[in-house]
Amino acid sequence: MGEGGRLRDLDERFLRRALQIAERARGHTHPNPLVGAVVVRDGEIVGEGYHPRAGAPHAEALALEAAGERARGATVYVSLEPCDHHGRTPPCSLALIRAGVARVVLAARDPNPLAQGGMARLLAAGVAVEAGLLEEEAQDQNEAFFTALRRGRPFVLLKAALTLDGRVATRLGDARYVSSEASRRVAHAYRQWLPAVMVGVGTVLQDDPALTVREPDFRPFPLMLEPPPLRDPLKVVLDTEARTPPTARLFRPGPRGERARVLILAGEGAPKERLKALEAAGARVEELPREGGRVSPERALALLRAEGIDGVLLEGGPGLAGAFLARGLVDKLALFLAPKLLGEGRGLLEGFGVERMAEALRLRLHRREWLGDDLWLEAYLEG
Amino acid sequence: MGEGGRLRDLDERFLRRALQIAERARGHTHPNPLVGAVVVRDGEIVGEGYHPRAGAPHAEALALEAAGERARGATVYVSLEPCDHHGRTPPCSLALIRAGVARVVLAARDPNPLAQGGMARLLAAGVAVEAGLLEEEAQDQNEAFFTALRRGRPFVLLKAALTLDGRVATRLGDARYVSSEASRRVAHAYRQWLPAVMVGVGTVLQDDPALTVREPDFRPFPLMLEPPPLRDPLKVVLDTEARTPPTARLFRPGPRGERARVLILAGEGAPKERLKALEAAGARVEELPREGGRVSPERALALLRAEGIDGVLLEGGPGLAGAFLARGLVDKLALFLAPKLLGEGRGLLEGFGVERMAEALRLRLHRREWLGDDLWLEAYLEG
Repeated sequence: MGEGGRLRDLDERFLRRALQIAERARGHTHPNPLVGAVVVRDGEIVGEGYHPRAGAPHAEALALEAAGERARGATVYVSLEPCDHHGRTPPCSLALIRAGVARVVLAARDPNPLAQGGMARLLAAGVAVEAGLLEEEAQDQNEAFFTALRRGRPFVLLKAALTLDGRVATRLGDARYVSSEASRRVAHAYRQWLPAVMVGVGTVLQDDPALTVREPDFRPFPLMLEPPPLRDPLKVVLDTEARTPPTARLFRPGPRGERARVLILAGEGAPKERLKALEAAGARVEELPREGGRVSPERALALLRAEGIDGVLLEGGPGLAGAFLARGLVDKLALFLAPKLLGEGRGLLEGFGVERMAEALRLRLHRREWLGDDLWLEAYLEG
Repeated sequence: MGEGGRLRDLDERFLRRALQIAERARGHTHPNPLVGAVVVRDGEIVGEGYHPRAGAPHAEALALEAAGERARGATVYVSLEPCDHHGRTPPCSLALIRAGVARVVLAARDPNPLAQGGMARLLAAGVAVEAGLLEEEAQDQNEAFFTALRRGRPFVLLKAALTLDGRVATRLGDARYVSSEASRRVAHAYRQWLPAVMVGVGTVLQDDPALTVREPDFRPFPLMLEPPPLRDPLKVVLDTEARTPPTARLFRPGPRGERARVLILAGEGAPKERLKALEAAGARVEELPREGGRVSPERALALLRAEGIDGVLLEGGPGLAGAFLARGLVDKLALFLAPKLLGEGRGLLEGFGVERMAEALRLRLHRREWLGDDLWLEAYLEG
């Protein structure tokens, strides 16, 4: 292998390390992306940092601080293009220049129009910059962040467990449990990832889910070396008539004693006394205009986006899933197929269907993995 | 490797060869099993044979004939226990003894009470006999034969193509096509295997299928070295009121010019003029007693079994599949899952369902293979 190949291998190794330490904050940085930075001098890591949460210092600042004087002449590996704007923290591009670093290797360019420009400023200051190594991994790492910017609404991931004949529940609505415990642990990792989980009120009434993060298996995040601190997501209920029982399990403190954060999205004109009871139970309640008698998915997503939510995990039921899919509001699916048959029962999608097989929605499979005899799929909607 | 290991390797190699040549008759031997035999002397194959069709000589007889005098002192490898009864052909056990073979290595013992006893007679005559090598492969090769003997009815394989959300057709019944061309070619191999294919009249009216064998991909049969002569199955329509149109495609000659063999199973009291029209179109018509207004699946299978049909491929629709599954009449499933979503539509199983998730029918996956982005599964019902 030539000198260039060896250098590239080293670059990839340190850059991967930057991506890996970024994972320590998975679930805590919204609306910011995960970012990790590694300062390397003479082939040795002299400083590391990752962005722990919105409002806290950026990864580059923490890594430079750890490196101190050794940052001068060093190479800095960073998972995302350093920002160039004065937000809650000073621009990272300037900090890198002031620290006297010689070279910056970054994975993903920042599509955020407010943050980008870091690369240009570094180059203008005479810092060598290389971009694009491990870019796909870096894009995947911050998928919700990138998709939300592109779409102007939160990234939406539909998660469901199905039997092989496509049922999520029996005729009577029993859904406990479709998939294996191993599958359910992987499913919990998605709740850690995305800042909000959303269900329809039917699911609350039928299953009374806690919607917390319990013993997740973090296999969806291959760069993760150790689990991040666990935290429960914001729990959003699409509940036009405010039928959520104030005694529902989702109001209870989480497995780590966390206060539950519950947002009820009711339709305008929902019974006032019920809204008050929900607030008394600890929920925040928002009334949204109705469309066709129901709270519109678009309105719900717009409200969440305005509050810095860049990703939503749709957890059912079939009516909610069908409504979002029919409106083109689902970006990705995470499906767990269990080796069972139910016969007649609840399907994955209700209130949505096509007339011709040629009109079926096509999926591009992104992940296909067996968890014992359960099949775990991740897929994107094509076109 | 010791002498014993080398001998066992050789035994396995020649026995596998016997299984492989048996595959040349796949689809042609019913109600008999596939059988292949190889005569080996001094480490060389001196004769081979396979059972080509019911009524024709057995594999052992053909292999011994090919070997001639060289059979004396030889080892004979045979995929199934040699028969010991005088049927349409003399017992193979006697033929082996008369030919003076020294040793017989067989894969699967014969569960057929009429045929078994071959091993005992060989041993009594001083022939060395070894049984059980490659027994699982040999059992799989003749799965329909073995299952039919055990159950006292034809082996039933439910074959279907589904979207990932478990739909076999749209709300309007459009099922063309759920799965990819690659999947459909594999699916055709199942029609070659089993002597009969069965559909409900609804499928005839909706899809007008030909139910022939066209360009099959024989991957379901891993021992097959080259394709067998293709032939179309007996086409059975469960059609209580004799609504099959006499102009249906299934009456037409097959892709190789074969005359279509069609059996209409009508309910007693079906309109006589329709039955006559179907007979005029070339069908054989049988009237069966009704149960709950419909032809009973058990009666249909009993009639087929009485005629030497040891396996039936159920090809739909959802009502037929649900009726058979609800009665415990499905032995195995072959499913092709396509990466699509349809939303509301026809499910795999209609007229069947359970109330509790814990009552779901559990499947034991036997094969899980990707055909491009389609998932090809074979599974058994547990318990």
